[in-house]
Amino acid sequence: MASGTLLYAQSGGVTAVINATAAAVIQTARAKKVKVLAARNGILGALREELIDTSKESPATIQALAHTPGGAFGSCRVKLKSLDEDRAKYERLLEVFKAHDVRWFLYNGGNDSADTALKVSKLAAEFDYPLTCIGVPKTIDNDLAVTDCCPGFGSAAKYTAVSVREAALDVAAMADTSTKVFVYEAMGRHAGWLAASAGLAGNGADEAPHLILFPERPYDEADFFKRVKATVERVGYCVVVASEGIRTADGRFVADAGGGKDSFGHTQLGGVASHLAGRVKDALGYKVHWTLPDYLQRSARHIASKTDLEQAQAVGKAAVEFALKGMNSVMPVIVRTSDAPYRWKIEAAPLSKVANHEKTMPAGFIRRDGYGITDKARLHLEPLIRGEAPPPYGRDGLPKYVALKNVGVRRKLGNWAG
Amino acid sequence: MASGTLLYAQSGGVTAVINATAAAVIQTARAKKVKVLAARNGILGALREELIDTSKESPATIQALAHTPGGAFGSCRVKLKSLDEDRAKYERLLEVFKAHDVRWFLYNGGNDSADTALKVSKLAAEFDYPLTCIGVPKTIDNDLAVTDCCPGFGSAAKYTAVSVREAALDVAAMADTSTKVFVYEAMGRHAGWLAASAGLAGNGADEAPHLILFPERPYDEADFFKRVKATVERVGYCVVVASEGIRTADGRFVADAGGGKDSFGHTQLGGVASHLAGRVKDALGYKVHWTLPDYLQRSARHIASKTDLEQAQAVGKAAVEFALKGMNSVMPVIVRTSDAPYRWKIEAAPLSKVANHEKTMPAGFIRRDGYGITDKARLHLEPLIRGEAPPPYGRDGLPKYVALKNVGVRRKLGNWAG
Repeated sequence: MASGTLLYAQSGGVTAVINATAAAVIQTARAKKVKVLAARNGILGALREELIDTSKESPATIQALAHTPGGAFGSCRVKLKSLDEDRAKYERLLEVFKAHDVRWFLYNGGNDSADTALKVSKLAAEFDYPLTCIGVPKTIDNDLAVTDCCPGFGSAAKYTAVSVREAALDVAAMADTSTKVFVYEAMGRHAGWLAASAGLAGNGADEAPHLILFPERPYDEADFFKRVKATVERVGYCVVVASEGIRTADGRFVADAGGGKDSFGHTQLGGVASHLAGRVKDALGYKVHWTLPDYLQRSARHIASKTDLEQAQAVGKAAVEFALKGMNSVMPVIVRTSDAPYRWKIEAAPLSKVANHEKTMPAGFIRRDGYGITDKARLHLEPLIRGEAPPPYGRDGLPKYVALKNVGVRRKLGNWAG
Repeated sequence: MASGTLLYAQSGGVTAVINATAAAVIQTARAKKVKVLAARNGILGALREELIDTSKESPATIQALAHTPGGAFGSCRVKLKSLDEDRAKYERLLEVFKAHDVRWFLYNGGNDSADTALKVSKLAAEFDYPLTCIGVPKTIDNDLAVTDCCPGFGSAAKYTAVSVREAALDVAAMADTSTKVFVYEAMGRHAGWLAASAGLAGNGADEAPHLILFPERPYDEADFFKRVKATVERVGYCVVVASEGIRTADGRFVADAGGGKDSFGHTQLGGVASHLAGRVKDALGYKVHWTLPDYLQRSARHIASKTDLEQAQAVGKAAVEFALKGMNSVMPVIVRTSDAPYRWKIEAAPLSKVANHEKTMPAGFIRRDGYGITDKARLHLEPLIRGEAPPPYGRDGLPKYVALKNVGVRRKLGNWAG
């Protein structure tokens, strides 16, 4: 095989299956005798020259990595700016790549990461350094452009649908004398994909979830209250799923309580469910309960979707294959070839088409009244949560998740001043 | 077999496996040709004469009930007072029992329910009505006296340990540039059993959860902050598990935000994790995330403990056997005969020893510093989350939970004025 090193890095919020992508990258490269380094804590590890030698991990460990949630090499929330603004950082990256003979760079993340990979690739070309940059898709938000869906989403969606179905059975049992309204807060800043996946838990107006609040639709409190009340009076209780990113008609986030901004410049959210539950209690007088699953929804490898796992592995494998073929500045994306039976394949998409774009829910996926999903959405989403892929469990009743040794590579450069 | 009807009712917060108990009750009674009615919404259904004919459900449905969370016949949060105070209600119960030839009453709940069953039994004796009353244990809080553990707890404990382990892997991956402190809120008003079960997720000071806050120990904010800071500086991040019922030294609940009281007279809690997260953020400046799993933790049948499931079924079966033997005013309890290998059996305990008692964690289960569990606790808790018992899944990627027909029995009495 071509000489040189492949560098793999994880970026942004991790998922239940991003390590399955990592495992596939390492396994595919190993089979082709290509050395794989991993950056510790994402792009920061590349900047700091904190690289991990994955050859120190046994085949059994890499196999176990495929069923371990989290991000085994560490991820980060750092977005590089334009080539002009952050030129020193991009040049440092190239310096580190040269020092370690990195010829293939695989960046596993969302649209920000695709953008970074694209820029690194441009700078390499400018410096005449032979480098193939590949973006590898990942995000529970499911908001990447071009790809039909994003690895990580299907498992979070399955967690959401299963959790809502289970909690709804609890609420149904208690509603006569206790909780009448239950609010579930789903992740999703600008796209309601995870909130929508809760819709798979039931069908018809009387099955939970009864009301879904999407960031794609303005939140109208009076109308919401009216519907909650009508549902409680008709069904006996009401299960609400709210996307963290819902906003009122004037564009303000319903839960601005969290305040602040993360390093991507996104508003740091939280507290939609608590807010809605409090308002419903005060306005309608119902006993309410609410849940904020937070990280549980994106790390729940124990309830991973088999479809999602297979796609996470497929993009990892394809990324290495594309890289070794020298297909620069592309991302392996999932292309759906059939809904029923569900069929998909991997193709290469130009990073430029993915970078910095955000895919929200198609209008045809949200019910006309704005509070539920359509049959079209159901047809689209259901295959993504299909199939179970439980991790192995130990005698202690816990999943056997693996911890890597993460042995560092000897540094060749001086400290990074960035 | 003896003639007459067996009445089964569910009480209080439901669990992932209370329906497994119900299924065992129905299956055991069917095998002995005993007719089983169920009260709709717990004791309220008995008072209102809203009874369900379980013979209308097929054997396959009852079998599926064993893997369905929630409370299939409805539960309720209603506690009957003393025989003097609520005499009319107790007499109404007997009236309904007589009208439907109820000779065996199985009340599936916690210590309040054991108390109610005991009082019904006393009144029946007073009226010379031949009735055998059995309490059937259930509670995710694990706080019933006499029994070694409570059906429902093991599954909630497994959910807790698995969720904390998974979320901790997420936090570990992000900590370099993002969340440094993660707070998980566990149910448990006065007993820290569920918070303790999170301790099974890791071992040693550097493994998550790093700090557990028990209601059995006063919460000292300054000391807590000191430990959070030390953990972040040593490990890079800190995972905290807080019981909803933690209180300061002066006895005040840390999260009195929720306010109010439920019909049992318990303070309605919520918001400990959000409170702690906010305080840590302000005092220490760390980026925080937090989760409130709420009902998800007690309805997560998809991650049920096999041990718990077997015990839930065993108490259901034993309850019917005890009832038919005329063993009045008892509860089938779980007796541990060996820790390693874990062995248990069912015995009958007098309801008087269970009623209105609350079992908190033994002092020897909480680490001397107050922030973790001891090896003794580990030895005790681990068998309870051991084994997996996943529900069957459908082609749609969701567990196949069953909905009963819940056909009502024709009423024989007038409306209840209560």
